[in-house]
This record gives sequence, C-alpha cells and structure tokens, in this order.
Amino acid sequence: VRLLDQTKLPAQTVYIDISTAQQMHDAIRRLVVRGAPAIGVAGAFGAYLAIRGLPDDESILPLLDEACRFLTTSRPTAVNLSWALQRVRRAAAAAPVGAIKPAVLDECTRLLDEDVRACHAIGQHGLELLKAIKRTNSPALQLLTHCNAGSLATVRYGTALAPIYLGSEQGLQFHVFVDETRPLLQGSRITAYELSQAGIPCTVLCDNMAASVMASRKLDAVIVGADRIAANGDVANKIGTLGVAILAKHFGVPFFVAAPLSTIDMSIPSGAQIPIEQRDTREVVHGFGALTAPADVQCLNPAFDVTPAELVSAIITDRGVVRPSLVTNLPKFMP
Amino acid sequence: VRLLDQTKLPAQTVYIDISTAQQMHDAIRRLVVRGAPAIGVAGAFGAYLAIRGLPDDESILPLLDEACRFLTTSRPTAVNLSWALQRVRRAAAAAPVGAIKPAVLDECTRLLDEDVRACHAIGQHGLELLKAIKRTNSPALQLLTHCNAGSLATVRYGTALAPIYLGSEQGLQFHVFVDETRPLLQGSRITAYELSQAGIPCTVLCDNMAASVMASRKLDAVIVGADRIAANGDVANKIGTLGVAILAKHFGVPFFVAAPLSTIDMSIPSGAQIPIEQRDTREVVHGFGALTAPADVQCLNPAFDVTPAELVSAIITDRGVVRPSLVTNLPKFMP
Repeated sequence: VRLLDQTKLPAQTVYIDISTAQQMHDAIRRLVVRGAPAIGVAGAFGAYLAIRGLPDDESILPLLDEACRFLTTSRPTAVNLSWALQRVRRAAAAAPVGAIKPAVLDECTRLLDEDVRACHAIGQHGLELLKAIKRTNSPALQLLTHCNAGSLATVRYGTALAPIYLGSEQGLQFHVFVDETRPLLQGSRITAYELSQAGIPCTVLCDNMAASVMASRKLDAVIVGADRIAANGDVANKIGTLGVAILAKHFGVPFFVAAPLSTIDMSIPSGAQIPIEQRDTREVVHGFGALTAPADVQCLNPAFDVTPAELVSAIITDRGVVRPSLVTNLPKFMP
Repeated sequence: VRLLDQTKLPAQTVYIDISTAQQMHDAIRRLVVRGAPAIGVAGAFGAYLAIRGLPDDESILPLLDEACRFLTTSRPTAVNLSWALQRVRRAAAAAPVGAIKPAVLDECTRLLDEDVRACHAIGQHGLELLKAIKRTNSPALQLLTHCNAGSLATVRYGTALAPIYLGSEQGLQFHVFVDETRPLLQGSRITAYELSQAGIPCTVLCDNMAASVMASRKLDAVIVGADRIAANGDVANKIGTLGVAILAKHFGVPFFVAAPLSTIDMSIPSGAQIPIEQRDTREVVHGFGALTAPADVQCLNPAFDVTPAELVSAIITDRGVVRPSLVTNLPKFMP
C-alpha cells in the first residue's frame, strides 16, 4: 500500500510504502494517513497485509482478528477504523478457509470503491443544500471549513469539500475560508493545498480569526467533516469544531457536518461516550522545531471535541441530508 | 532605554538598547515591546530620545511634534500610544523653552509611575471582583486568559494578570488556562512564561481548545486586557478575543476586560471606528521558519478584533469596575 505522507505537506510530496500491519498502525498513529474515511480504508488494507503471507489454513482467522484489534488501537476517536476492520473480519469469517485472503482483499477494494461513491453522493446532496441556502450576494458561495475533510481525508472527493469539488466541476464559484487548525495545521497545510491544486479560491486564517471573519463578512455556511457521530447526532470532529459551531450559531450562519453513514455510530447514545484521543503535548509547544512555551509548562492536546446536535444545522450523508430533528431521523438513514 | 526583546521569549532573554526615536518605532512595530500600556510608556521615552541631543531653543517643539507623529504610526490600534505621546507634547508645550527636555523626561517618568499605580489598582479591583464571583468548588480560582496582558505588557503587574499576581501574594490560589494566541503565541511564549516565573499554575492550550475547556470544566471567569475601548464599551483586543467572549457567553462564564483608563477612547463612539492593524501574513504561514501553507495562498492577519460591549460582563479599570450598562457608566469614570 502506497501512502502520501501528509505530515510532509505542503512542502514535500513524499510517498511511503507500507508492507506490514505494524507499519500501517504507525502510519495511522503518526497521521501519515488521516481523516476518518481514509483511515478506515487504510486500516482494512493493513489487516490484509497482516495475513497476505500466511498459509491458507485455520491459523489465518485468529491472526487476522489479532491484527484488527491491534490496528483499532492506532487511533481511538474515528469510528470508521473499527467499522472497516469489522467489515474485514466479517468477510473473512464468511469465506471458506482456503479463500480468506482473496475475500479480505475483495472487501478492502469494496471499502475503497464504496468510499468513492459515498463521498460523491455526499457531494451531490451537499451541493443541492448549499445552493438552496445561499444567502450572500457575492457570485461565489462563501464557506468556512475547519481541518481537512477533503480528498486527502478520504479515498477521493472528500466529505466537507465534496460539494465544493462537484460544484466547481459544474462551473459554480466558491470562496473557502480555511481555519489553519492548530496544532497540526491540517487546514493550512492540507485543505489549502487541495483547494489551490483544484483552482478553488481560498483564504487561510488562524483559528482565532474565525469570529472576526463571521463578524465582518457574510458567510453562506460552515461545513466540516466528522470522526464519529453518536446516535443523538452529537458530532466528534477535529479540536476547534465546537468553537466554530458556537460562533456560527452566534452569527446565524448554518453549520453543516458532512460524513458517510460509516461515521455514524448508533451504538453510542451521545457524544459524552465518544473516546477523545489525547495526543502528545509536544505537538502544541514544540510543533515547529522550536519550543514555544516554557519547557516545564502544563499543556492540553485533545485531538477532537464534541459538538452537540443542537448546534448542527444538518448532517450531509451519502443517503441524503438529515435535519433538523436528528435524534428521530438518524435511524431511518442507517443501513 | 533598555527593552527586553519579547520576540525572543521564552527561549532567550535578550535586552536591546534603544537610543533613537527611529529605533523605538522599529521596536514597537516589531513587537520587541508590546502591550497597550507598555507601548504608551515606551513611545513617550522614544519621543524624549528624539530631542535629548537638541539645543534648548525654539526648534525643539516642532521636532518633538514630528517625532510624536512618527512614533504614533508604529502601531495603530492601541490608543495608549497616541495618548501618552499627547501627554508628552502637552508637557513640552507647557514648559519654558529652556526646560522642555527635563519637562518631557519628567512626564515620561510620571507615565511610568502612573502605569505601575494603575495596574496595581486594577489588580485590587479585579481581585475583589474575582473573589466575589468565584463559583467553582476547586480551591483555586479557575481562569482563562488570551494573549498577554501581564507584567510584560505594562510597566509592572499587568492588567488582566494583575489580580492574579496580587491575589497570589495574598496566598490565594489560581489556575490559569492560557490560550497560546496565534499567530505570534504571546500566550504560550509570554503569559505562560510570566506565570511560571511567578509560580502560578497554568495550562497552555491552542486557541481552538478553549471551547472544549469550557465545555468540560467549570471556569470562574475569562479575563483579558484591551488595546482600545470605545465610548460605548466595545473592546478592541488581540485577535481571538471576540471568539473567546462568544464562547464565554455560550457557556455562561463571566467575561472581564482589565484596562487602565488610558485605554478608553471617549472620542470614538463604537468599536466600528477603531482602526484594526493588518499585519504581514507571513506571521501566519511562515511563523516558525517553515512554510505552513501553499506558497501563493491568500491569508488573513488582523492583529485585533472588536468585542461588542454586550459580551463584556465588566471592565476592570484603575478607578473601579464598570458594569453592566457600559455606555452610561463609562463617562463617570473618566478623568
């Protein structure tokens, strides 16, 4: 499996070849590959790598299970990872002993294709919604996004950025304000890179400038991705999303979450039960090669926060738009 | 005039000797010295440096005026700078021609002493207020601050941090959440440094983590400084302050602004008339020695934002606490 090393963007375009589950675990943990849908698919291929050299006998299933359990531990918050690994285990269990390896590889390919289709569908539903709610006079739809929920967070198209890519192909104009997204700058490093590559006008801002942007300019909407959505519609997404949602409410800007159904975890009643990954605080105070705080100071680094459903105007899924009474509507959308 | 170079903190403690008005202009513009009260006093000394080598004749007043006009251009938002330079000009105009230089130097020293006294008074009024509103069960007052409004932003004590320093001297406990404050990290670099030096427990967070902190922990208050307060109580302060104020309102946390009367500009009816400094966008995308966004991407870098008076629970001045009907109360406090 060949991965674009996203930790090196935008300065360098480096690909990394992954040939073991251990390497895939490491790549997911280090954010070489990131974004809930992308790590789901990458994790599945990681499980395949764990078994592809094994003999076709009974030993294969327990070893696959072990690899899946191990890969699940690489990042705790995005549900897509455990969901995709569950799919792989189920495909393996359903196959005859001699055909487990091709069955797992098929399932990986299916996950890959499904993600492309899901993101395309999210793009279509999202685009319709954005066209319907456009309220600014500018020729371009004025959007703000946080973190990266684009092509590089998925297999293709992205989730939050999918409507923008699709609309742009149809000749619609967009202007995207991109939160830089501290501490790892997925917004300025990755989203701005993606949008620039696609020729879509964008403006990078520090996360703390979003309020000033909303106060001084009219935005049509905020649109972000998600790492896990609870059954009540609470949304775990990149740290800072909750703040943006509160600002959007304050300024009367619609706040949309775009995510495939695989991101919805009906087993979890509310956001309070979503595990929030706490990452190394050196990412905050030593992220740029120099210490930016006193050496011994305490520091926080939660990778995600939870936005309560009541701050979410709509969830854009691959099956359509869920709103506004999320709790009662969500189950209808689930497969 | 010897200045601590704040751009080098916390890694290096470097002092810079300033001997001309041009050097002072440069030091203020580059943020070697920063913080509304501190740049007021520094600017006044810069004006003195412009005339100290001149002969004691009529040429001195126009040259002082020119130096003051020049120094005022170093940073546009904080009103303390033009206020202090106005004080210097008035002191010069009132002095006999032969005694302008000592009169200006006296006024500079007076500004220095007044700032120490004003910050001490802010500390006392603020401490009383904080004790009165404490609502958490923890033994320590749980506060959040943005940017740096401490000793290093003033001559001594600070504004927002003054109640903390004074309370700490009296044995009160504090725990301060410190927004790192992008793009120049005055929070993690300077506030965390100051508080650590003073032995006051603090926790650094990325700006976009403030919502998560408020959602998961009870805070007693947010307390910040100000660069200019309009007659209606609107507050210009470091970019990101508006966002924190909106979050505080959402979570029901009191939001306090601490500033000397010299920060209040009664000549300006509302925040809409406060000039907002736009700084070089390289501070955002090239702030750490490496490019953190595509090379040609558009970027914002307003240094300040305006928090409307209705989001401010109280303004803590050196003459007492102004609240809650700011518009009608402010004039009573002005000298």
